[in-house]
Amino acid sequence: MTRLYGAIEAGGTKFVCAVGTGPEDIKDIRFPTTTPQQTLQRAVDFFLPYRQQLAAIGVGSFGPIDLHRDSPSYGCITSTPKPGWANTSVVGALGAHFDIPIGFDTDVNGAALGEAKWGAAQGLDDFIYLTIGTGIGGGVVSGGQLVHGLVHPELGHSFLPKLPEDGYKGRCPYHGDSCFEGLAAGPAIEERWQVPGAELAADHPAWNMEAEYIALALASYFCTLSPQRIILGGGVMDQSHLISMVREKVQKRLNGYIQHSAILDDIENTIVLPGLGSKAGILGAMVLAQQLEG
Amino acid sequence: MTRLYGAIEAGGTKFVCAVGTGPEDIKDIRFPTTTPQQTLQRAVDFFLPYRQQLAAIGVGSFGPIDLHRDSPSYGCITSTPKPGWANTSVVGALGAHFDIPIGFDTDVNGAALGEAKWGAAQGLDDFIYLTIGTGIGGGVVSGGQLVHGLVHPELGHSFLPKLPEDGYKGRCPYHGDSCFEGLAAGPAIEERWQVPGAELAADHPAWNMEAEYIALALASYFCTLSPQRIILGGGVMDQSHLISMVREKVQKRLNGYIQHSAILDDIENTIVLPGLGSKAGILGAMVLAQQLEG
Repeated sequence: MTRLYGAIEAGGTKFVCAVGTGPEDIKDIRFPTTTPQQTLQRAVDFFLPYRQQLAAIGVGSFGPIDLHRDSPSYGCITSTPKPGWANTSVVGALGAHFDIPIGFDTDVNGAALGEAKWGAAQGLDDFIYLTIGTGIGGGVVSGGQLVHGLVHPELGHSFLPKLPEDGYKGRCPYHGDSCFEGLAAGPAIEERWQVPGAELAADHPAWNMEAEYIALALASYFCTLSPQRIILGGGVMDQSHLISMVREKVQKRLNGYIQHSAILDDIENTIVLPGLGSKAGILGAMVLAQQLEG
Repeated sequence: MTRLYGAIEAGGTKFVCAVGTGPEDIKDIRFPTTTPQQTLQRAVDFFLPYRQQLAAIGVGSFGPIDLHRDSPSYGCITSTPKPGWANTSVVGALGAHFDIPIGFDTDVNGAALGEAKWGAAQGLDDFIYLTIGTGIGGGVVSGGQLVHGLVHPELGHSFLPKLPEDGYKGRCPYHGDSCFEGLAAGPAIEERWQVPGAELAADHPAWNMEAEYIALALASYFCTLSPQRIILGGGVMDQSHLISMVREKVQKRLNGYIQHSAILDDIENTIVLPGLGSKAGILGAMVLAQQLEG
């Protein structure tokens, strides 16, 4: 009987659950994120028929989450403002039904691993997977390893200069108009312009401003994390005209300081879209499961 | 005969050369950085008498430098604005006289290794050594390894929000008043207030502003690099009242987003001064030599 891997992309809005072995062999379902009990039960119900074949389950979760295996709250979503979800043990809920290894990491760390195995980061030891959507978050691989550190990176909450022409008050409940997410996530675009981003024309000034904020953040990441490549995913990047504006503005902001052809001459291959498209998250969760077999 | 290690802290203003085996056994000299030929010759002359005993030489250098061993410019200082030093091969100059392994990394990466071995980062896998002086730079250890990536981190050039009350035009030749170094390195303090920092009283408003900028940068690093500890070195941090202001402002800026006791309750042990004081750089260069013996 084929060994299968379970995968959960646990998002704040929707859950995706899948079984399979890779991009060519995957069966998935998606359902809205409601209460922890109901949502996790639906995930368990999805996997139960595959119980005999499952080698491991990987979970890429929204956060913040506790990744320290020696911590009492390991496997939990911790301080999320999402009602009911603070201190929910995702690993515990699955472990109660499946006596197999459970991998657990942030959704964006998972997506980074997916892109490394099957997508736009193959062969790279230093890269970032950034998602710009309802929120902004990123997974970071440095020297071939995921960066965890004290907690895990929260790239969306790094501080950015506000553009002088931007009068918007910002949207981050913690940092107002001081952080990347507060200025540039989907809900900030919608609130600033009073129209959902998807309805703004490609030549609307919103996109120039958005590209400027993304470029400021990316230029800072090049200076702090020194990635070989940055992969930009998430709903906001579905605006296909955006990425070329971002590339140009990153070069302009760095202004020749980083003397490397990847920035100066080859930016099209340095700032890219996900190779796995919207499947990066769920395939990344599958890699979290596969890694457990060593 | 005791095996000794050579070390060079190659700074833009001064060079420090040392031989020894560690903090308790080190002999050093310092001289100003003049032309590459003269300066490197003085370094060679210092080591020549120890030729028979030297196992390796480690160099922690100002930059940017080329750290990729398969690159034609490996071992060189690359795009520095310092007159005469662009494209100087430091490793080549030493290799012409000493047939022993030469370790080469940024001055701040070296200092980070020194702090890990003998100083304030012992036992940590994820930390930053940041120096705030004539320039601002940092060495980053993630998952127990130095971060190199595309080039190497250039923490001083990450972009920061400018404070509304700050009318200063900034000092970075590449990024003006947009980056950390342009706003907060020693020369920026002196130019903004028209007095060298060392002559400004502890209650001068300059220090509140300086602490604010340092805190903004550190808060961003906690979000991007997720360090367990940040070590603050460099001449500006000789202002002993500064670090407690920085700690308080980091907590205020993060505003509870990173729910970890290291930030919330124990910031005194999370943002610290170097354990090796001003010796971090030269001892770090010694670690770069010692590492070559595996």
